[in-house]
Amino acid sequence: MTSASENPSGDKMRASRLTGRPVELWSAKTVFRHGQCDPAGIVYTPKFFDVFNQTIEKWFCEDLGLDYYELLGDRQIGLGYASASAEFFIPFTVGDEIEIFIRVTKIGNKSYALALHAMKGEEEALRGHFVTVTTSLQTHRSIPIPDDIRHALEAYADKANI
Amino acid sequence: MTSASENPSGDKMRASRLTGRPVELWSAKTVFRHGQCDPAGIVYTPKFFDVFNQTIEKWFCEDLGLDYYELLGDRQIGLGYASASAEFFIPFTVGDEIEIFIRVTKIGNKSYALALHAMKGEEEALRGHFVTVTTSLQTHRSIPIPDDIRHALEAYADKANI
Amino acid sequence: MTSASENPSGDKMRASRLTGRPVELWSAKTVFRHGQCDPAGIVYTPKFFDVFNQTIEKWFCEDLGLDYYELLGDRQIGLGYASASAEFFIPFTVGDEIEIFIRVTKIGNKSYALALHAMKGEEEALRGHFVTVTTSLQTHRSIPIPDDIRHALEAYADKANI
Amino acid sequence: MTSASENPSGDKMRASRLTGRPVELWSAKTVFRHGQCDPAGIVYTPKFFDVFNQTIEKWFCEDLGLDYYELLGDRQIGLGYASASAEFFIPFTVGDEIEIFIRVTKIGNKSYALALHAMKGEEEALRGHFVTVTTSLQTHRSIPIPDDIRHALEAYADKANI
Repeated sequence: MTSASENPSGDKMRASRLTGRPVELWSAKTVFRHGQCDPAGIVYTPKFFDVFNQTIEKWFCEDLGLDYYELLGDRQIGLGYASASAEFFIPFTVGDEIEIFIRVTKIGNKSYALALHAMKGEEEALRGHFVTVTTSLQTHRSIPIPDDIRHALEAYADKANI
Repeated sequence: MTSASENPSGDKMRASRLTGRPVELWSAKTVFRHGQCDPAGIVYTPKFFDVFNQTIEKWFCEDLGLDYYELLGDRQIGLGYASASAEFFIPFTVGDEIEIFIRVTKIGNKSYALALHAMKGEEEALRGHFVTVTTSLQTHRSIPIPDDIRHALEAYADKANI
Repeated sequence: MTSASENPSGDKMRASRLTGRPVELWSAKTVFRHGQCDPAGIVYTPKFFDVFNQTIEKWFCEDLGLDYYELLGDRQIGLGYASASAEFFIPFTVGDEIEIFIRVTKIGNKSYALALHAMKGEEEALRGHFVTVTTSLQTHRSIPIPDDIRHALEAYADKANI
Repeated sequence: MTSASENPSGDKMRASRLTGRPVELWSAKTVFRHGQCDPAGIVYTPKFFDVFNQTIEKWFCEDLGLDYYELLGDRQIGLGYASASAEFFIPFTVGDEIEIFIRVTKIGNKSYALALHAMKGEEEALRGHFVTVTTSLQTHRSIPIPDDIRHALEAYADKANI
């Protein structure tokens, strides 16, 4: 892993903040509701990580064709994070719609990295970075990325880079 | 800001993972309950950010002598994050106790940075990094760190470095 | 208020558990994700109340034509609960889809009551009951249901009873 | 089950709202933090159910001498709810302390009922009612309340009624 892909708030990554929706990527929308916002009227920070996680699950199930819940259930494959981070550019207030686009930024041997571009209209409002290590939920040790996950990630990455 | 203080998963920071409780720092304990854990039996990642946030609020109120809720309420001072990140070393399971120690890693003009060392017994299980920008909740623009907050952070940092 | 409309687990209401989707009512679907489920693999009880609340907000915005966030924001109208309850028939596990149908069960002077039928396929899996009191967020006292809310609730109730 | 113990908002129960802390009961305190409150500045309703649940878990572990997590884990005993409800008297705002007192209101063959009196100082601010059915997490069928749980509940109820 290079630090470049993981540094959530370095100048270079801030410089690359998106100014348009990356339509080559899969995305999902959601609206921030009352219980996700705080007394200042803006979304409570941990809720972004919650929405990021929900979006990744949805992406597995609806786009990659991988049943996230079967992976963690019957197949006992852990998809825990080595790191999770976000840099925040523009706040969201209650009732705002967020659209999250997923980019695969690295596929390693036993881990992969995702960037989540969260758009408010045409502006990138925040960006998440997640490094996932594949593990066995029985031994709690890292394992090579299972073939079907690897192929799905590679196919997605190829398609998005056209 | 140097990237060193913000890079959540660079090799250098991983190398410095704590092997004992940093007792010079203020800390608070909590137990992970059923609703904070997922079907894999481990704490759901966004819940760590929630507990980090709650711990920072408690630290303000109980140790720094600053009423976090008055700051955001009557005084209309925003304490939003420019970035938030965590690197994960050891998982927590339901019923586990976590003890979180807070370190001030930087005090700038309009922002400050905290590291949160989350211990499972004597082992650092995860570490959070938060960069807070002080803002006016009325103009939504950054403002210099208010004097009382600055003094409290400085006094805390001085005491912890003895 | 009669106790009949409020008793969440009396025999009569249990006896009326739905065996088919009440298609005359507005509904919304959602999928239960990892972070909403507990180590037993089933949805954590408080998350049902969260999903009920989100569904009510969506219903206001998308079906009743009332901006829930403007009501609570600019118009300073509180829609707090006098009571909230649920009776549980069938558990939901991670990845399950829930479809929630909203019924208006009472429109009073300063309060209204809703029943939320939560279906798992064609079976009613749980049912929520909410009694909302309309208040001024400035005086924190109850106020008559504002006209636009009353008319929207009445029109909805009329349409559903055809 | 009689309806009396389950009706969350009938006149009789409202009439019995507590005007002093029921000090014969076990209790635990917590402070409502930023992320538990909504843009109206008050606690988001589902968070009360979360805090109720956390308090019940703490009571099992710290007072009843029953490891809640071992029950649901190794022993595969489900403690799901047949019903959950709350009636709300006084709102809580961010930073407020809540003290929750637990009362055992019924011990049946395969279920038990609890009332949770949530106090704001000397005033009862809300009251929760939970009916728990003991189940096998392997067959998902109800089972007689295990002996150690029954004895602990009975001993607690006896002590509280002195």
